[in-house]
Amino acid sequence: MGKITAVSPFAPESLPRLEPLDGVRFATAEAGIRYQGRTDLMVAMLDEGTSVAGVLTQSQTSSAPVLSCRKHLKKGAARILVVNSGNANAFTGRRGLEAVDITVEAAAAAAGSKRHEVFTASTGVIGEPLAAEKFAPLLAGLAEEAVPDAFEAAARAIMTTDTYPKLATRKARIGDVEVTINGFCKGAGMIAPDMATMLCFIFTDAAIASEPLQELLDEHVTTTFNCMTVDGDTSTSDTCLLFATGKATARGQAQVSKKGSKKLKEFSAALQDLMRDLAIQVAKDGEGLTKFVTFEVQGAKSVAAARKIGLSCANSPILKTAIAGEDPNWGRVVMAVGKSGEAADRDKLAIWFGEHCVARDGERAAEYDEATVASYMRNREIVIRIDAGVGKASGKVWTCDLTHDYVSINADYRS
Amino acid sequence: MGKITAVSPFAPESLPRLEPLDGVRFATAEAGIRYQGRTDLMVAMLDEGTSVAGVLTQSQTSSAPVLSCRKHLKKGAARILVVNSGNANAFTGRRGLEAVDITVEAAAAAAGSKRHEVFTASTGVIGEPLAAEKFAPLLAGLAEEAVPDAFEAAARAIMTTDTYPKLATRKARIGDVEVTINGFCKGAGMIAPDMATMLCFIFTDAAIASEPLQELLDEHVTTTFNCMTVDGDTSTSDTCLLFATGKATARGQAQVSKKGSKKLKEFSAALQDLMRDLAIQVAKDGEGLTKFVTFEVQGAKSVAAARKIGLSCANSPILKTAIAGEDPNWGRVVMAVGKSGEAADRDKLAIWFGEHCVARDGERAAEYDEATVASYMRNREIVIRIDAGVGKASGKVWTCDLTHDYVSINADYRS
Repeated sequence: MGKITAVSPFAPESLPRLEPLDGVRFATAEAGIRYQGRTDLMVAMLDEGTSVAGVLTQSQTSSAPVLSCRKHLKKGAARILVVNSGNANAFTGRRGLEAVDITVEAAAAAAGSKRHEVFTASTGVIGEPLAAEKFAPLLAGLAEEAVPDAFEAAARAIMTTDTYPKLATRKARIGDVEVTINGFCKGAGMIAPDMATMLCFIFTDAAIASEPLQELLDEHVTTTFNCMTVDGDTSTSDTCLLFATGKATARGQAQVSKKGSKKLKEFSAALQDLMRDLAIQVAKDGEGLTKFVTFEVQGAKSVAAARKIGLSCANSPILKTAIAGEDPNWGRVVMAVGKSGEAADRDKLAIWFGEHCVARDGERAAEYDEATVASYMRNREIVIRIDAGVGKASGKVWTCDLTHDYVSINADYRS
Repeated sequence: MGKITAVSPFAPESLPRLEPLDGVRFATAEAGIRYQGRTDLMVAMLDEGTSVAGVLTQSQTSSAPVLSCRKHLKKGAARILVVNSGNANAFTGRRGLEAVDITVEAAAAAAGSKRHEVFTASTGVIGEPLAAEKFAPLLAGLAEEAVPDAFEAAARAIMTTDTYPKLATRKARIGDVEVTINGFCKGAGMIAPDMATMLCFIFTDAAIASEPLQELLDEHVTTTFNCMTVDGDTSTSDTCLLFATGKATARGQAQVSKKGSKKLKEFSAALQDLMRDLAIQVAKDGEGLTKFVTFEVQGAKSVAAARKIGLSCANSPILKTAIAGEDPNWGRVVMAVGKSGEAADRDKLAIWFGEHCVARDGERAAEYDEATVASYMRNREIVIRIDAGVGKASGKVWTCDLTHDYVSINADYRS
């Protein structure tokens, strides 16, 4: 890891407590894949009848585990998840596929499942062969040991440059039955591939078939994880999986099998809320950050356009650097809106830093006072609101500032 | 300006000498627009019969001078160019348009020309009203004073965060007549909008009508200025203008009026070479840089795809930071190729750092030796070659590394 090891200023004072959830058990181990003195292997055992949905990286150079997940997702059923940290098994060619094969084989044997019910993810350095034979023999024992009350331990085992584990839990009703959604993720930004891949695993005891589950996940990834950025880079390994054990049927929940079911309205909202919570936790652990920044875009032509304008701001090095310097440099916001490629009316564009309007109707606001806005910039959490002046759609994007420590962490990583 | 004032390590030891060129004269002044004790106003006087072509920023929030140039370019004739530094006259609303109006009016009077024969450009802070009434009265005097032998003085007057003036000259024959192309530009990257807008002005005594001139400029911008990036940001004010005075007709050059004329083959090559030279000079003056980096992409599906893969690498903060840290982190190249959205064959992808092959056939090269490649990374000029493995097209992109000084310059700019 880099030389900067301080914990993010946004690390939570205490972690949320994730209660055990029917149908899921966890075990972790120190497999010595790369790290010493910490867990780096995590297994989640899933009861029979578990359905699964997933969203995987768009990268053209996806890792071997991503290729495997993409194939297995077609069947929609899961019994075991195996995740290692320290080595991404990406760009490892034929040997990378062999390592996944060894893992899948051992995991299927450990779970007594079919091969397509095995899901794998790897995060860490890329281009190094992953010695799956070192940890595959551990899987049978871990399957035996696995216990339900171990979400935090599971979240810790998959960390890389993260300075804190990221956990969230929500409740929702489907009909009259209350179900639980527990999730955890890792990532210090989509600043792959070395140590900062975004991996997210969400578990629920709800009984939902894989098709409607996939529909919900697709919908909410767009407004949560895909609205969060640290530096605009995309991992070869980004993986978000959602598992539904179906155990709530024991408490009377009727399984939901169809897409677009109104019965999932509350569940859907709770899932989105949990995913947004996790996405914000990732942005708040961005490498080297000192400030958490939200871009709120309104007046855009479409929700997609609002997101693109927000991401254009959130990925602009020169704007993020100004924020690190507590400089209310709204000219750089104008620039970032302009380069997004999305429609904006230069003569109606308006920008606020917090509650302070800095620009309106295509020029500096009459009430703009640099000292007041500079004072606002000293806050740890900054909200920049933009009205593109061309429509009614809106969206939010979360990011962090770009600091000297970001450069130090990433320049010194392997030295 | 920022706190880092050191000259780029790539500043040339001596500037190229640009000989006077028939039909163009320059004058500069200290108008006190923002700076003290340096020139900040430049006027180029163009003889009657000068044709013009231009490429302007794609930004949706273009500056007032860009809007004016876009309109005037339709007529294709030029008599006077007025450029100020210190204030970009961007996002200045109605008052910005008025400032251009005042400038155009005074410039047309000074040159005895039509309004559409006036071209303007501004670079500097944005959102501040430009007091054109302060410098417009100077234009008549400058038009009188203007002299042919003043390219360097002109290049200096338009500088902002540049640490050296950027000049280039080439010769070419059209038929049997030798013509000259002289150009200069400013910019420390397309890292607008504050002080780093790219402005480029090219002059030739060749006799070429505005339509074929525009064709050449459009073609060569794609492979030169649009293949150069500092941080991926786009200015509200980027302007590249090419003026042809036509004076070579006095030495027997027959005017070229048609697009695609074979007579312009040598001229076209010289123009591209000059524009590439200037683009590289801009990348070599990138804010805070310590290394100049060339991405050479081959094996792509198209020239556009090669360029997009190269820019995806050249705009990746995590890769540019690794280069600053002299880390041969080729995994980040794999990542950047993967996120470009362009086709690449994961199992045929190959990467070289200088002459050292680091990856081949989708995995680490057998001969890879980290110490050797780390030693290569200590060079000031780094070449990273990528074979995407899917086609036969190639392209080059130029950039610099991302350093602590980049953060300092841009975080501390207004403090």
